[in-house]
Amino acid sequence: MKIVLFGATGTIGKAVLQALSPRHEVIRIGRSAEDLENKLIDHQADMTDINDLEKLFGTLGKVDAIVSAAGGAPFVSIQELTPAHMMTGLQDKLMGQVNLVLAGMKWLNDGGSFTLVSGVLSHDPIRYGICASTINSALEGFVRSTAIELPRGLRINAISPTVLQESMEAYAPYFRGFDPVPASRVALAFSKSVEGLQTGQIYAVH
Amino acid sequence: MKIVLFGATGTIGKAVLQALSPRHEVIRIGRSAEDLENKLIDHQADMTDINDLEKLFGTLGKVDAIVSAAGGAPFVSIQELTPAHMMTGLQDKLMGQVNLVLAGMKWLNDGGSFTLVSGVLSHDPIRYGICASTINSALEGFVRSTAIELPRGLRINAISPTVLQESMEAYAPYFRGFDPVPASRVALAFSKSVEGLQTGQIYAVH
Repeated sequence: MKIVLFGATGTIGKAVLQALSPRHEVIRIGRSAEDLENKLIDHQADMTDINDLEKLFGTLGKVDAIVSAAGGAPFVSIQELTPAHMMTGLQDKLMGQVNLVLAGMKWLNDGGSFTLVSGVLSHDPIRYGICASTINSALEGFVRSTAIELPRGLRINAISPTVLQESMEAYAPYFRGFDPVPASRVALAFSKSVEGLQTGQIYAVH
Repeated sequence: MKIVLFGATGTIGKAVLQALSPRHEVIRIGRSAEDLENKLIDHQADMTDINDLEKLFGTLGKVDAIVSAAGGAPFVSIQELTPAHMMTGLQDKLMGQVNLVLAGMKWLNDGGSFTLVSGVLSHDPIRYGICASTINSALEGFVRSTAIELPRGLRINAISPTVLQESMEAYAPYFRGFDPVPASRVALAFSKSVEGLQTGQIYAVH
């Protein structure tokens, strides 16, 4: 398969690349000009800009899978939370991935797939996690509803990972009691979505 | 209790008003100047504008419950869907209700509650319903995560109604096989949220 991977330089992205590249052609996309210069990515694109994505997909031509391990949301207490924080996260992790689907749909071969990333906070909230919980839940609703409307046997799933072992040094105080998983195990769920046949699924990796 | 009701002139809003007003002081809020002129609402406010809400709450003073039966999202096929459609719905039904919480929090008496409205499409999608499914799911994640951070015993729940009997004349073709409920039954769930003690709940009325 010809697979486009957004967020290729992140912790999950690198694990997905490692899992899929032995069997498939994986095109690595990222936002950073420096990563492009250092050949850590093959193309630079900003998924919050649908025009940028349309240009990218036009360059790449038809593909079999569009995979996202990209998108962030601010962490802030309810006392500090403003509409602007929410919009920042909605524009980035939610609309960025929605844009991938809207721009990429016509470039997917019949039966091709989208795989997006949500996260455990959709259903298991933590302190400071309101934006992330809202956005991850939104992505899951987007996947359930988009799956039934996609034409030509196109598929869409989301991977919902818990906190990563690789992130625990930084995040442990916020995720006490969570059982972290290695990014390699999260990558398995991406592989199931890309290489399997299911659609409309939220694969929890907890 | 002193209760502020947003969306007071809608089908659900009217049923909530009828259910709560025999026992409580209900202040009716809406967006329409005409409804204000015709005394169908007590105050006019636009929940998509947090400054407007802050002014409103300043006028009303302390209250015991803030209830929303307001917010819409565009219905459009995946082929027609643009980021602008999604943003319209996100700004209205999602951010409108998020704004209610952010602006209203300091005006709620200890133990007071927010009751928001999501909808069945969060988990039971229909054709043309991508925006609604995404936004309703987002609202449910927002409620789950906000519930654990709210101070002073403040509470928050969402009501997730299926299609209303009152709406079936217009919506039946899109909701074949759904079992519609009367708005009066949806209003019971609002009453449970406002007059009960639970928090972080999504009350499905299906």
